Amino acid sequence: MVSIQGKSLLGLQGVPKEEIELILRVAKKMKSVVNSGNKKLPLLHGKSVVNMFWEPSTRTRGSFEMAAKYLGADVINFTPRGSSIQKGESFRDTLLTVTAMGVDAIVMRQKQEGSPWFARTCVDPIIINAGDGAHEHPTQGLLDLFTIQEVKGHLDGLKVVIVGDIDHGRVARSNIYGLQAMGADVHLAGPRTLLQPELESMGVTVHYDLDEALEGADVVNVLRIQRERQGIGFFPSAGEYNSLFGISEKRLEQAQKDVLVLHPGPMNRGIEIEPDACYGGHSSIQEQVKNGVSVRMAVLYLTIIGGDDVDITR
Amino acid sequence: MVSIQGKSLLGLQGVPKEEIELILRVAKKMKSVVNSGNKKLPLLHGKSVVNMFWEPSTRTRGSFEMAAKYLGADVINFTPRGSSIQKGESFRDTLLTVTAMGVDAIVMRQKQEGSPWFARTCVDPIIINAGDGAHEHPTQGLLDLFTIQEVKGHLDGLKVVIVGDIDHGRVARSNIYGLQAMGADVHLAGPRTLLQPELESMGVTVHYDLDEALEGADVVNVLRIQRERQGIGFFPSAGEYNSLFGISEKRLEQAQKDVLVLHPGPMNRGIEIEPDACYGGHSSIQEQVKNGVSVRMAVLYLTIIGGDDVDITR
Amino acid sequence: MVSIQGKSLLGLQGVPKEEIELILRVAKKMKSVVNSGNKKLPLLHGKSVVNMFWEPSTRTRGSFEMAAKYLGADVINFTPRGSSIQKGESFRDTLLTVTAMGVDAIVMRQKQEGSPWFARTCVDPIIINAGDGAHEHPTQGLLDLFTIQEVKGHLDGLKVVIVGDIDHGRVARSNIYGLQAMGADVHLAGPRTLLQPELESMGVTVHYDLDEALEGADVVNVLRIQRERQGIGFFPSAGEYNSLFGISEKRLEQAQKDVLVLHPGPMNRGIEIEPDACYGGHSSIQEQVKNGVSVRMAVLYLTIIGGDDVDITR
Repeated sequence: MVSIQGKSLLGLQGVPKEEIELILRVAKKMKSVVNSGNKKLPLLHGKSVVNMFWEPSTRTRGSFEMAAKYLGADVINFTPRGSSIQKGESFRDTLLTVTAMGVDAIVMRQKQEGSPWFARTCVDPIIINAGDGAHEHPTQGLLDLFTIQEVKGHLDGLKVVIVGDIDHGRVARSNIYGLQAMGADVHLAGPRTLLQPELESMGVTVHYDLDEALEGADVVNVLRIQRERQGIGFFPSAGEYNSLFGISEKRLEQAQKDVLVLHPGPMNRGIEIEPDACYGGHSSIQEQVKNGVSVRMAVLYLTIIGGDDVDITR
Repeated sequence: MVSIQGKSLLGLQGVPKEEIELILRVAKKMKSVVNSGNKKLPLLHGKSVVNMFWEPSTRTRGSFEMAAKYLGADVINFTPRGSSIQKGESFRDTLLTVTAMGVDAIVMRQKQEGSPWFARTCVDPIIINAGDGAHEHPTQGLLDLFTIQEVKGHLDGLKVVIVGDIDHGRVARSNIYGLQAMGADVHLAGPRTLLQPELESMGVTVHYDLDEALEGADVVNVLRIQRERQGIGFFPSAGEYNSLFGISEKRLEQAQKDVLVLHPGPMNRGIEIEPDACYGGHSSIQEQVKNGVSVRMAVLYLTIIGGDDVDITR
Repeated sequence: MVSIQGKSLLGLQGVPKEEIELILRVAKKMKSVVNSGNKKLPLLHGKSVVNMFWEPSTRTRGSFEMAAKYLGADVINFTPRGSSIQKGESFRDTLLTVTAMGVDAIVMRQKQEGSPWFARTCVDPIIINAGDGAHEHPTQGLLDLFTIQEVKGHLDGLKVVIVGDIDHGRVARSNIYGLQAMGADVHLAGPRTLLQPELESMGVTVHYDLDEALEGADVVNVLRIQRERQGIGFFPSAGEYNSLFGISEKRLEQAQKDVLVLHPGPMNRGIEIEPDACYGGHSSIQEQVKNGVSVRMAVLYLTIIGGDDVDITR
């Protein structure tokens, strides 16, 4: 029996296929709960979850908060504003303090890469990485896998092209690990300033020409241009980027007819994606957000309560 | 059977009398719940409400949050601080994202007049306007109607005087629409800089002399002087305003003996209202706040669940 | 029968021994709930608690929020950011407004000493002081008493040394009152700039030499150096303070072998406390945080619901 009970979800690197399949299977059941008239499934009644977001976030924080509340957990939000961190408390002491309040899981977003791994060495609760700098964002990776599998029926053998700012992108990294575990063929496309050729050592194909990359693609995952993460000498400019790598319905003609378009959001429309592509028939971008809640419900349930399935009868 | 199930509450303009009566009737029952030892009436169990406040608010945000929680809904607060909006996401995309999380109602306050109307064209959940710039604030209007009806027994035929900054006041506008629908006789009083004579086209009487306006008034609704909404050349000054339009027990002698004094809060005591008037026997200002929770419970229940009544037996 | 039902908890000054014992006794039962797999004990179902924190806080705000949620209360957080206070509303009017929303208890932290006492004169709900400037912080005092009693089995006759910034410390004051009510022998230690000799009038012993103070101590309560509360000419510097009053395992050799080390947090490690002391075998600092949730559950339950005991069977 596969189980991830008691395990932290730090990244998708090294997570075995069976564990990903378990999460996706349970997430599918959770989605039927979210889609029903009654979203409450109090499997985490009596459990508590803390959201610690040191970086701004609407969708991820809200998505975890919704997921935990739908499952009946008590949820507390902590932010660096107005917190002990401002008073000089160490990261470890903050974690120890939060843990001592009787918390079952800590969902954290931090600027420092690797901080969730450090957190796991400090305290006992489940640690769920909601994004550590430019490193990993495993639940985003999982919800992308979920959405692809839902639309395509499977993941193995698919040509998935990740387009954009790969070097600064935690979404890219988690996608690569997860997609490879599930047998997909991963391609990366972007300008040389945002995509190192050395990434080929991860077993992916690197393209600096978008049309070449999109040739026969089953899925295009469009990443956000995170201008706030880049230095001053950012090249290409937004306009140049758009003309070279912006995803439009026209550009998608290179891909499979039923190509699926994803974007982790928030979108810069007119830069990395055009309105016809993000709102068109190929896009499942809104569905990704809904799937995000379902996947996070699955992760919270499976890490805190465990088991190799979930009973959603109420 | 009257029902507002599935309807957004954007403003009181054009809302028919029967719908207002339905909300006030259900709010009365909700109030008996709030006044009891057990405020929990989980009619919205399994439903979720998102508070999106782009402008600061204590009472309105808290009032909606309380109302939703008393009804057993899951509530998430989003603010522009630390949100996707900062990252360049469009208003529409933020709404789509929030909607995709499985939300039943979005309560929103925005600076831009009309934004709740735009929001309704973007997404499916119930939209409840919690104040759009200087335009409308329908639940404030409804709680004012509720309070007047509770104290006076009826609304039709009453002389209601709204005093203050009418031009910049969303409360004034929602009051006028609601009061007129219920058959009240609406009078406006204020300085020429804050009250355009053209408003008479709305079927109200405009006064630039407070004593004249208060003559025989059944209700005086005192609006907040929103100095933060006015330009630099604000006239009259706070002191001038107070001497000309400040409501005191002395000034109220012009009105009916049992005149009712309302204020939407937060009050600038010593400017638009004197302590003897706001804490005196004519005032129902604290009761307004309590009624605000009841009215919002009614609105959330009737728009999300529906029906022409509510069963509060537990 | 002792009961604190309906009583506000403003400070520990003047609180009789029996009331403290009641809180500690109920807190012990609450702790067994927090330590169990199911932390939910919905004794406050249908009640509501408002957290009003005008000063930054992670642990205290979070601890109260957790405590209230574990007991099934609805909890609302208000902060000065984005609130009516910014719009010029008076403190009293804000309290009246919050009260009118149907609140059972208001947990408040304020810069102004005495503000919770003023609040109690304004409104009916239970007021719980979560720290008023440099004055009192009664639930911190209670959780310190709880922790000492848990470890030592009793409080009377113990030599308790409070070290640090006594003059600016609300924790010190609440500790002194609580410890004296329970029969402990209270000693204070710190530099002259942070510890006035006049405090001896409170029935405590003042020491300016740490080794002298620690001689035979059963408990050392190490206070945080609140540099943000002190003026420019702060003396001693952090380094000087550390060498003169920093608590290390070495310094603790003066005390009893089984000396208990406490710290209210957040800690400035390397200033008032050394890592070997705060993470070592004498320390119960993490346990204090856990006890904080239990003590706050007891206080909320006993003031809102009452009784001289609690039934935790579920």
